[in-house]
Amino acid sequence: MFLNPPKGMRDFPPKEKIIRDKVFRKIERVFQRFGFEPMETPIVEMWDVLKGKYGDEAENRLIWRFKLPYSDKEFALRYDLTVPLARYFSKYKPSIPFKRYQIGQVYRYEDPQKGRYREFYQCDVDVVGVEEPLPDIEILDVVSSVFEDLGLRNYVIKINDRRVLKKIFEESLGVKDERIMLEVLRTIDKLDKIGKDGVLRELEKYLSKEKIGNVSQILETSSFKNEEILDFLEKKKFENLEKVIELFKTCMDLLGSKSDKIKIDLSLVRGLDYYTGMIYEVVVTEPKIGSISGGGRYDNLIGMFVGKKIPAVGGSIGVERLIDVCVEQGVVKYETDMFCDVGIIPLTKEGMSQCWRLADELRRNDLSVFLPYKTFSPREGIKYFEKKGIKYVILIGKEEVETKTITFQNIEKGLRKKYRFDEIDKIKKEVRSLS
Amino acid sequence: MFLNPPKGMRDFPPKEKIIRDKVFRKIERVFQRFGFEPMETPIVEMWDVLKGKYGDEAENRLIWRFKLPYSDKEFALRYDLTVPLARYFSKYKPSIPFKRYQIGQVYRYEDPQKGRYREFYQCDVDVVGVEEPLPDIEILDVVSSVFEDLGLRNYVIKINDRRVLKKIFEESLGVKDERIMLEVLRTIDKLDKIGKDGVLRELEKYLSKEKIGNVSQILETSSFKNEEILDFLEKKKFENLEKVIELFKTCMDLLGSKSDKIKIDLSLVRGLDYYTGMIYEVVVTEPKIGSISGGGRYDNLIGMFVGKKIPAVGGSIGVERLIDVCVEQGVVKYETDMFCDVGIIPLTKEGMSQCWRLADELRRNDLSVFLPYKTFSPREGIKYFEKKGIKYVILIGKEEVETKTITFQNIEKGLRKKYRFDEIDKIKKEVRSLS
Repeated sequence: MFLNPPKGMRDFPPKEKIIRDKVFRKIERVFQRFGFEPMETPIVEMWDVLKGKYGDEAENRLIWRFKLPYSDKEFALRYDLTVPLARYFSKYKPSIPFKRYQIGQVYRYEDPQKGRYREFYQCDVDVVGVEEPLPDIEILDVVSSVFEDLGLRNYVIKINDRRVLKKIFEESLGVKDERIMLEVLRTIDKLDKIGKDGVLRELEKYLSKEKIGNVSQILETSSFKNEEILDFLEKKKFENLEKVIELFKTCMDLLGSKSDKIKIDLSLVRGLDYYTGMIYEVVVTEPKIGSISGGGRYDNLIGMFVGKKIPAVGGSIGVERLIDVCVEQGVVKYETDMFCDVGIIPLTKEGMSQCWRLADELRRNDLSVFLPYKTFSPREGIKYFEKKGIKYVILIGKEEVETKTITFQNIEKGLRKKYRFDEIDKIKKEVRSLS
Repeated sequence: MFLNPPKGMRDFPPKEKIIRDKVFRKIERVFQRFGFEPMETPIVEMWDVLKGKYGDEAENRLIWRFKLPYSDKEFALRYDLTVPLARYFSKYKPSIPFKRYQIGQVYRYEDPQKGRYREFYQCDVDVVGVEEPLPDIEILDVVSSVFEDLGLRNYVIKINDRRVLKKIFEESLGVKDERIMLEVLRTIDKLDKIGKDGVLRELEKYLSKEKIGNVSQILETSSFKNEEILDFLEKKKFENLEKVIELFKTCMDLLGSKSDKIKIDLSLVRGLDYYTGMIYEVVVTEPKIGSISGGGRYDNLIGMFVGKKIPAVGGSIGVERLIDVCVEQGVVKYETDMFCDVGIIPLTKEGMSQCWRLADELRRNDLSVFLPYKTFSPREGIKYFEKKGIKYVILIGKEEVETKTITFQNIEKGLRKKYRFDEIDKIKKEVRSLS
């Protein structure tokens, strides 16, 4: 179909764009309240920058990479916002802590399906340059504040730490073989889908009965309270995990009432590579749509361009899903989100000039005013604006021009009032106080 | 250089991104006040959609078009926002008048030079579906309001009409040959660069002496007042130009005081193709940076996908230049545009938890708060935030925790005050009233 956007990409009509912008602005504002600053990198990157960063599947099937007819250079559309951040940080060496957010499109040549697109927005917030655990907790704080601010209450922030998983494997399961560790992690990651028994059954492929008993013990902690899990970890006396236990405890302490939403979950795996410490995932429980934000500490990624370790921790908000949830939960609404405060109904051609003057005055007072390009009868005009979802109209006809007044009407209530032409303040108050 | 963005593309560090966002938001708000709605189309379009729309040079040298290794389909990065608008309008057939704006990146494989990029933003506002001239005037109104709102005063909106140019050629010069007409227009378009005499000399290639006299007469009107030009046109008694004269007059009438900025300029050509009626160009006179917005009526473009005439008029704001001008004129400022209202200085590790609680409360009250990840001495802390450009700090140490107070300081004035922990309102007032 010639008129379609490319497969897996979307046109956003005003109705949707308005809602999307609202959600983006709300998220942005939360980031800003925490002192994060916006940053922007191009949509296009040199292929060399992305190469070798995302694994074989991405390189051979998913990255939008290409040459132009006029150049030998190989380009790519950005695959995420993290590698561009790494390039940026390495190039400009901003002072640390570098607290930045970026919201923008990324590109993946996926098979399009519901909720999976070839062009979609990511919304990332990261702290670069700090090894200590406070930024980890701040990221959880930011993310939780985003949900609170959007009026979403039914969510849980699952947290875990890569160092715990690694330790459990080494000490409790005696697994040091990296490949087996990955397979076992992948299996545990399916807990939500196939249940505890399913996981244990699958694990028989890799582990002895005795060791599976140990895994079972860990999985059972998922019904524990946070304090019980901390107890469990402390009793296990794993070496070098004091820092993680300390991190979890500090997290509970600093997050105050928000810590109610935090659930330590030792079975949380969250992808397989690149995380090195705390990991988290936010699950919205009602509607049951799964993970809507995730992230963690990744101390080896940002420095890859310059070959040294640069600590970092961050989170990504799944805005595409989030927007759906916001609409579903009525957090943002289509109908009431139109921009126009007032519609002006020109009743005669001669009054048009007055209509424009009034519109100009109202706009200077930051009201948004829709002024049609033709005259209407009062009835037609009201119908016209009612259909547009505009609540207030101003009628200007022969009588109004002669008496230098306007007729103001709340469409719903049918109530009409007269104002003098220069009573802009009163008109503004009327519109703003009722809306 | 491995760490650079692609040639002709830019990374925007927080400082610049903040300013850019401010300018975009201001422009957007003006559009919204006029009842224009936002819309979004993908960055990527099918090559077939762009093909044949921009002329040979663009197709063979400038459009970012490419195939991926995994598909035979040919894609392109959008070259402007108008063809995507045409595709959108043809596909969804929104109700008219369709008043939309779109702000977004476009891509041109230009040779990079100062002020010319391969990835840059366009900012378009259009009315689709109305043949009558009021939307033409509304576009001028919107554009002029953008400049007013940004606090730019030194600008002129030059307007002309394609129908006048055409008529003058046909009737006054007797030129009907399309090719000659184009050459003469191109020459006239150089008026600013080579001056009147230069233009007249070049025209000798195409026109007889007598006819050049006629052109000269037209060029002379550029020093005329608007009323004199209208007189000139009326006296010429060109056939079928009544509508244009009417448009100019209505424009002066409806724009009220803004019409002072309007300058009818019969020598304004504004590119060569696709415009069919009113054309305009905004020139900022101080600093002398030339055209910063342009547009006009183009009744044959939007309908091209469906093969019928769909009238449209629009304008595009050259945001990249505009941002430079705004910075230069001090309309937006770097230093004062940081997000953070307050910095918190934790003086002891034990007080960290109180610092987080306070930060949380302040953020819930929409203040942006920077909370460092470590403790400071008062002096170090103040220095730290001073460097960041943050004006207010809150110190929390042993004494503050014990007495449940905070120490509030305006860095510049050095003035310290004590507040109780729960006096959030007072702290907010302090920060907001002084900033």
